[in-house]
Amino acid sequence: MTSAELLFRLAALNTHYANAIDADRLEDWPGFFEEVCLYKITTAENEKRGYAAGVVYADSRAMLSDRIAALRQANIYERHSYRHIIGTPSVRSEEEGVIAAETPFLIVRIMRDGKMDLFATGVYRDRVSQAADGELRVAERIVVCDSPRFDTLVAIPV
Amino acid sequence: MTSAELLFRLAALNTHYANAIDADRLEDWPGFFEEVCLYKITTAENEKRGYAAGVVYADSRAMLSDRIAALRQANIYERHSYRHIIGTPSVRSEEEGVIAAETPFLIVRIMRDGKMDLFATGVYRDRVSQAADGELRVAERIVVCDSPRFDTLVAIPV
Amino acid sequence: MTSAELLFRLAALNTHYANAIDADRLEDWPGFFEEVCLYKITTAENEKRGYAAGVVYADSRAMLSDRIAALRQANIYERHSYRHIIGTPSVRSEEEGVIAAETPFLIVRIMRDGKMDLFATGVYRDRVSQAADGELRVAERIVVCDSPRFDTLVAIPV
Repeated sequence: MTSAELLFRLAALNTHYANAIDADRLEDWPGFFEEVCLYKITTAENEKRGYAAGVVYADSRAMLSDRIAALRQANIYERHSYRHIIGTPSVRSEEEGVIAAETPFLIVRIMRDGKMDLFATGVYRDRVSQAADGELRVAERIVVCDSPRFDTLVAIPV
Repeated sequence: MTSAELLFRLAALNTHYANAIDADRLEDWPGFFEEVCLYKITTAENEKRGYAAGVVYADSRAMLSDRIAALRQANIYERHSYRHIIGTPSVRSEEEGVIAAETPFLIVRIMRDGKMDLFATGVYRDRVSQAADGELRVAERIVVCDSPRFDTLVAIPV
Repeated sequence: MTSAELLFRLAALNTHYANAIDADRLEDWPGFFEEVCLYKITTAENEKRGYAAGVVYADSRAMLSDRIAALRQANIYERHSYRHIIGTPSVRSEEEGVIAAETPFLIVRIMRDGKMDLFATGVYRDRVSQAADGELRVAERIVVCDSPRFDTLVAIPV
């Protein structure tokens, strides 16, 4: 892949990922990951201090699906909606088909009464690879939120 | 067109569209549409309920130009300025030269006293086609706002 | 360069530029500029009135480095962090290797207590050229902020 094509494919992956969440197609979300994967939400402060633990952690697509199933039962997600605005990926390296990239994001939360607020900003630290079917999939996504406060009860995928 | 080139051209169309609005070159705005077109602003809630009606509706470039002329007379638009941040288009289909795409957006409103607030978030649901002059133009843009409250007095193009 | 490749390279430049600031790698920031350059922060209102003066002004990479050194001594920057979300560049012209482009941005400020607010929106008005090492560098960046109020004490690069 040329650099331009790679950037295009990463950007397309991210926009599909975000649109699935924002359109409440949460069941599609685990499909963006590899079967064995890492998904973690943490904060910039935790990262700086070297804390490995994240607020949210999953290491397989099945675990991500369980998470969505639990969400659907709890119905927590119905109270608000979200809108992701995702920046241009910054490719760090590409080795043996594994792409390391860092991508800034901003998420707005929209309450049922119409009120909007800045929900989260940060970067996705990703390792992405091309699957047998030719699609790019996320092998690892560390969601590093800028704010030191991050709602631990957050249920929605980020 | 390759996928990368198509994405590039859609992104370029969107950024020119947004810059025209944000720089108060509103007279340029109808030129991004085909002569016979559909421009509608609605909400995610209305869409979900199957309401066809939108808050704002126009079905020709001439109607969009009339809208701008009315705005200029009313001078309503002068009170604030706006800044669009537009995400990566997600191409849904490309058939017989018509591209269906969905693109997230966020609009910040800047008051004359400097106060900024989140004005709107949502997605553009577009059908875009290549005109005889080679330019991409919008045949249909449904602006689906995330917030159920949307100021019906909104005058500015979104 | 094709148009798609040029857009890709401008977007990559901008995302690296923003990530350096947002990750507090401020010492890397002057390296995105040519040695003789122009960096200015101004407001849309000042631009409209034809005021040439900006809130912040530098005309060499050395001056930008001095600015960062002063910041590090003052430690002002440590109180908050920032997150840039940068839109798609709009290429105005490309002549003799110099690209004129305009790119919308939004910056969120994240306070140490976790509070987030809209810090600034605006456009970068850039002249970018390809250096001898093949890298694109900023020859001129006029940061035009939408808000008429812009904190003159702002220390962070924008």
